[in-house]
Amino acid sequence: MIGGGPGAFIGAVHRIAANIDGEIELVCGAFSSDAEKSKQQGLLLHLPIERIYGSYKEMIRRESELPADQKMDFVSIVTPNHLHFEPAKLAMENGFHVVLDKPMTFDLAEAKQLKQVAEKTGKIFCLTHTYTGYPMVKEARQQVLSGKFGKIRKVYVEYPQAWLSTFLEGQDQKQAAWRTDPTKSGIAGAMGDIGTHAFNLVEYISGLQATQLCADINTVVEGRKLDDDGAVLLKFNNGASGVLFATQIAAGEENNIKIRVYGEKGGIEWQQQDANTLLVKWLDRPVEVWRAGTGYLSSFAQHNTRTPAGHPEGYLEAFANHYRNFAFCVQARMNNEEPKKEWLDFPGIEDGVRGMAFIEAVIKSGKAAEKWADLNF
Amino acid sequence: MIGGGPGAFIGAVHRIAANIDGEIELVCGAFSSDAEKSKQQGLLLHLPIERIYGSYKEMIRRESELPADQKMDFVSIVTPNHLHFEPAKLAMENGFHVVLDKPMTFDLAEAKQLKQVAEKTGKIFCLTHTYTGYPMVKEARQQVLSGKFGKIRKVYVEYPQAWLSTFLEGQDQKQAAWRTDPTKSGIAGAMGDIGTHAFNLVEYISGLQATQLCADINTVVEGRKLDDDGAVLLKFNNGASGVLFATQIAAGEENNIKIRVYGEKGGIEWQQQDANTLLVKWLDRPVEVWRAGTGYLSSFAQHNTRTPAGHPEGYLEAFANHYRNFAFCVQARMNNEEPKKEWLDFPGIEDGVRGMAFIEAVIKSGKAAEKWADLNF
Amino acid sequence: MIGGGPGAFIGAVHRIAANIDGEIELVCGAFSSDAEKSKQQGLLLHLPIERIYGSYKEMIRRESELPADQKMDFVSIVTPNHLHFEPAKLAMENGFHVVLDKPMTFDLAEAKQLKQVAEKTGKIFCLTHTYTGYPMVKEARQQVLSGKFGKIRKVYVEYPQAWLSTFLEGQDQKQAAWRTDPTKSGIAGAMGDIGTHAFNLVEYISGLQATQLCADINTVVEGRKLDDDGAVLLKFNNGASGVLFATQIAAGEENNIKIRVYGEKGGIEWQQQDANTLLVKWLDRPVEVWRAGTGYLSSFAQHNTRTPAGHPEGYLEAFANHYRNFAFCVQARMNNEEPKKEWLDFPGIEDGVRGMAFIEAVIKSGKAAEKWADLNF
Amino acid sequence: MIGGGPGAFIGAVHRIAANIDGEIELVCGAFSSDAEKSKQQGLLLHLPIERIYGSYKEMIRRESELPADQKMDFVSIVTPNHLHFEPAKLAMENGFHVVLDKPMTFDLAEAKQLKQVAEKTGKIFCLTHTYTGYPMVKEARQQVLSGKFGKIRKVYVEYPQAWLSTFLEGQDQKQAAWRTDPTKSGIAGAMGDIGTHAFNLVEYISGLQATQLCADINTVVEGRKLDDDGAVLLKFNNGASGVLFATQIAAGEENNIKIRVYGEKGGIEWQQQDANTLLVKWLDRPVEVWRAGTGYLSSFAQHNTRTPAGHPEGYLEAFANHYRNFAFCVQARMNNEEPKKEWLDFPGIEDGVRGMAFIEAVIKSGKAAEKWADLNF
Repeated sequence: MIGGGPGAFIGAVHRIAANIDGEIELVCGAFSSDAEKSKQQGLLLHLPIERIYGSYKEMIRRESELPADQKMDFVSIVTPNHLHFEPAKLAMENGFHVVLDKPMTFDLAEAKQLKQVAEKTGKIFCLTHTYTGYPMVKEARQQVLSGKFGKIRKVYVEYPQAWLSTFLEGQDQKQAAWRTDPTKSGIAGAMGDIGTHAFNLVEYISGLQATQLCADINTVVEGRKLDDDGAVLLKFNNGASGVLFATQIAAGEENNIKIRVYGEKGGIEWQQQDANTLLVKWLDRPVEVWRAGTGYLSSFAQHNTRTPAGHPEGYLEAFANHYRNFAFCVQARMNNEEPKKEWLDFPGIEDGVRGMAFIEAVIKSGKAAEKWADLNF
Repeated sequence: MIGGGPGAFIGAVHRIAANIDGEIELVCGAFSSDAEKSKQQGLLLHLPIERIYGSYKEMIRRESELPADQKMDFVSIVTPNHLHFEPAKLAMENGFHVVLDKPMTFDLAEAKQLKQVAEKTGKIFCLTHTYTGYPMVKEARQQVLSGKFGKIRKVYVEYPQAWLSTFLEGQDQKQAAWRTDPTKSGIAGAMGDIGTHAFNLVEYISGLQATQLCADINTVVEGRKLDDDGAVLLKFNNGASGVLFATQIAAGEENNIKIRVYGEKGGIEWQQQDANTLLVKWLDRPVEVWRAGTGYLSSFAQHNTRTPAGHPEGYLEAFANHYRNFAFCVQARMNNEEPKKEWLDFPGIEDGVRGMAFIEAVIKSGKAAEKWADLNF
Repeated sequence: MIGGGPGAFIGAVHRIAANIDGEIELVCGAFSSDAEKSKQQGLLLHLPIERIYGSYKEMIRRESELPADQKMDFVSIVTPNHLHFEPAKLAMENGFHVVLDKPMTFDLAEAKQLKQVAEKTGKIFCLTHTYTGYPMVKEARQQVLSGKFGKIRKVYVEYPQAWLSTFLEGQDQKQAAWRTDPTKSGIAGAMGDIGTHAFNLVEYISGLQATQLCADINTVVEGRKLDDDGAVLLKFNNGASGVLFATQIAAGEENNIKIRVYGEKGGIEWQQQDANTLLVKWLDRPVEVWRAGTGYLSSFAQHNTRTPAGHPEGYLEAFANHYRNFAFCVQARMNNEEPKKEWLDFPGIEDGVRGMAFIEAVIKSGKAAEKWADLNF
Repeated sequence: MIGGGPGAFIGAVHRIAANIDGEIELVCGAFSSDAEKSKQQGLLLHLPIERIYGSYKEMIRRESELPADQKMDFVSIVTPNHLHFEPAKLAMENGFHVVLDKPMTFDLAEAKQLKQVAEKTGKIFCLTHTYTGYPMVKEARQQVLSGKFGKIRKVYVEYPQAWLSTFLEGQDQKQAAWRTDPTKSGIAGAMGDIGTHAFNLVEYISGLQATQLCADINTVVEGRKLDDDGAVLLKFNNGASGVLFATQIAAGEENNIKIRVYGEKGGIEWQQQDANTLLVKWLDRPVEVWRAGTGYLSSFAQHNTRTPAGHPEGYLEAFANHYRNFAFCVQARMNNEEPKKEWLDFPGIEDGVRGMAFIEAVIKSGKAAEKWADLNF
């Protein structure tokens, strides 16, 4: 693991997600650019001292020199955005598969370059867009792709949060500090942090690709350096249109990402707050309440649950699904086996490039006088 | 009553709404431009034959000639949009107060003219934007206006329906036929029919005025002559921003208008599907579930319910609240009394003008290449 | 109308319910046993002075002497329980159909006697168990009776309220005063007031008849003279079992009557708080959300709505459905026509007798040392 | 681990729960009474062959002979009920702390004996009543115990499932087979399997002890040997009363355990289907929606979450909370430190005895002609 030192949020989530299924073991780490902090964290995690490293460069170098049966199988990178590209590139070039937190890179140029590295090295790459790990999100995608709703006409996706409603970055809060700092986050704040999640979710479930957008991007809290709120009109490659909004200043909201997709005959609705439920809607008959853990779901949904219906799984399990599927693919590669189609269903390098293109387009559109901006991939 | 003949939807709603509280009695009507149909409908409603008229002109003329204690006190106009202005004008000029269905007129020019008539004649005017008749919508407005949430920063309002998902106007469906016909509806379809409701709700609850907008307006169903879908980015006079969407092609949706308003410290959420509940949200404490019929509500909410908490009132009662408040104001005028402030809280001529300005701006913006269009009032 | 003077709750509800559809007109009343108060109330309701009576006896006598085309068609009795039997009997014996508030009488003996009066006079009789007036309750019954769920195995019904959590009858509150007074309410408090509603709902939807019960009956608030809380185990004539509870001391609850019925293959769930929704459950496929106002419902549900899906109707409309169906039956009788089957679907004298038998059994069981008590009809 | 071989449900849940937080490592196991199956399972779990045992006796003996720094620290027992007592006793007597699945033993006599063993050996004992591991259940207990709702008056707890709606035990389904077999389950079916969960939840949150009960116990599915349905009236040591029902034949239900507790001034409602929400109700003000992961919760709730509000944790995390707290207590014991009060908050031997007493009383009452039976502890 690279990153995830003391005080980090997403590092701990990655570790839990990797632990849950007993398929992945943490064997080494460079948890902080401060060697002492890295050591502290590593010991807390019961790692042997010799595999706690003071920098990611050291870790990748030293691990790559270990015998095949001892060295790490892949690396998880959970640092802020400006520290995604370099370690990911180095890891792949040294033969390691990579799990990387989103958004993929600092900017679109890096993303395109990383895609080339991935293609050249052939390493397995997973980008942790958590929400597509939920079984009912996978079910939603399968149902939409099946064509049962007819042509998709409209999508709505929203991601309201409250946590940046005040000038939190002025209070020495680590999470807020780097996320609102353009030298660490990149050109986008809320749009990069959560807007990309919403964007990825829309494209994943609908199977469509956004082609144009029109954005209203705001910095609501005084003194903040990046956007904390935005709304985006979308156009898709099949002629459908959509609305995406993401905000971090909606007082009282937690983390309630929600999506609705409508076709000619019906559609779906899913929200994280009731993550084990997928509403399936029809023009002329009752709404159906599809539930995780039941026997009537697609193999994609069934594969990504651990418990029977009525034993709610949540965010950590959704995250773990990406890890487990990634690990199954890594194992298959090691065993020279063909991975199952359900295992391959995790976000990858292409999602990362599209996410960065979304960020660029949305920020550009936010400043533009013309209505529509193209998404360039 | 003018309009509301056989097959009409909203005419029947107006009659029920007027009946509920036993304060209003239907005494005459011109229910159709076809005299025979008007007569049929009037007899069905137990009206004496001599007060069933063949046209609104005849009705207004003949009623205005009756003695004061016999003639109607006010007129309800429930015709399609292109038949709003003339009868409303004629009624006011002949001394009658007016209840008029929304949107107020065929276009903005008519709206401005009608406003002049209302001001000149001094007649009481009610525009039936149903949703502001709900007690918890009134409560929402009172709480927002109280300042308890701090400055308002963001609003989201949505109004998804499914009923025009198919080419219903090709199937001899009266409601669909006139609403999708530009000679009867005006320049807007969905935006006029339900977008104006959403717009009115936002301005009512937030106490803000929209100043600019950016619209994506679509005609999704092939062959349709007016928009059946749209999404609008909004800017308000206090610097807040918002998103409004309204669609009539969201398969599986009924009529679920919903609004969220966020200030610096908290905000509110209300949706018609759970109309007797108002969610009140806070930055740092639990969401509160305020309920209609309870003793802790504002006088505006309490005045507009008939039953204790847990005895749900709905759409017809919300509609009836406008009628009852209007009737109380008419009675007060007749008795030379001062109306209570709670009675005055129904939509009026100004809401109508703003609604028509919204329609004009939204349709114009939908065709524009520039991002922002001004709302001109 | 008999009863429903100043300060009454249910009298006003009856009047609104009768008004809504414009099919019933209030023509006379004896609103209070105090002639002056009766007059006051009658004038408020715009009645002519000569048809405001000082007692129900006077009203029935004088109205029965009026010419057929002038006298009232039926009488609504909305007095406390101890004043149900006498006026209902007198009305029927003088040729008037009767709408009567629940529970039907003061005790079971009166109920059986009233049934004989009804049978002898042949008058149409409606007992206002509101909840069976909801369209989705009617839908639930139709679905259960259709056999689609197989044999019914289990029912749960609950009716929690909070309003008697304190010693309200000590505070000069008219509603609380008579409901907790055994000389006016009869032997039961909560069980009579709301337990009978729950019992009626169970038998209506399930189509079953309870045969035995076991009750835990409590008076929780000190000083109270009747029960304010109870729970009942039920056995039914087909071998199914059930649980019924009703309480008026559940702090924070409003009036949320809820029922669940389970058969071999599936079942239903309905609650008043979301009255326009019926959940239909299945062993092996998704729950379905059936909604009022849609085209896929049974004729019984469709007949009992006024608006399309998504325009919520509530408690007053459910109440009005009983009035409207009763009125249609009265009109049919007057016109010598056969009433439609949907019109006949309102609670009648048999429901009333069973409700009183429930009260007797439940109170008796509450005091018994043996587990099971029979319901005697 | 003892038990949890191929096809087991709860064994896998225990392993995940133990894994999540990286504090517990599986080091050995006797996964089946069939040595070959045990070996299979152990290898699947990446255990070294020498620590996969053919029986629990062998495991306890051999592990107890290992050096202190190598042997297991505690044992998890996840076998059917008839195989709880012996291994738990043996483990404690050989110096191992114990995690045991519920219900604690085969009958009450065993439970009382096990309590003596626990007291004599002083070993730490955890009984995995999952539902008290949820953070909002812990919050509920803290709020009730704080006295803010006044004296508790009424509790309702329910646990409806569908999974035994058919004669599943006739279809070679391992879970159904032992749970409906009186030689493995004991005298109770549904009441032992899920009724005890409901009973434990009530006593945990309310802080009360049931003293008497009256039960209706049914075997609904033909051919079944144990109860699959039951409803229980409860009386508590402070004078409060309650209703508990648990069923496994409610077609369409998943696993939706739900509890409501009412005091003089307010109360709480929690259900597993929305596990991260606790509704707090009041006599005279809005319901409050308390949410997991927020900063305003008690230390007990905060200690038992891993993620911020809006990142739903579920069943596995609730289960893991018991493991983590148990592990913290074991570590504290090993380090001779005082455990924090939040760590001690997991179900123990006393809960187990009470659960078995509940089973005995409920089955006895189900057959009795008298209404009330005592709970004997």
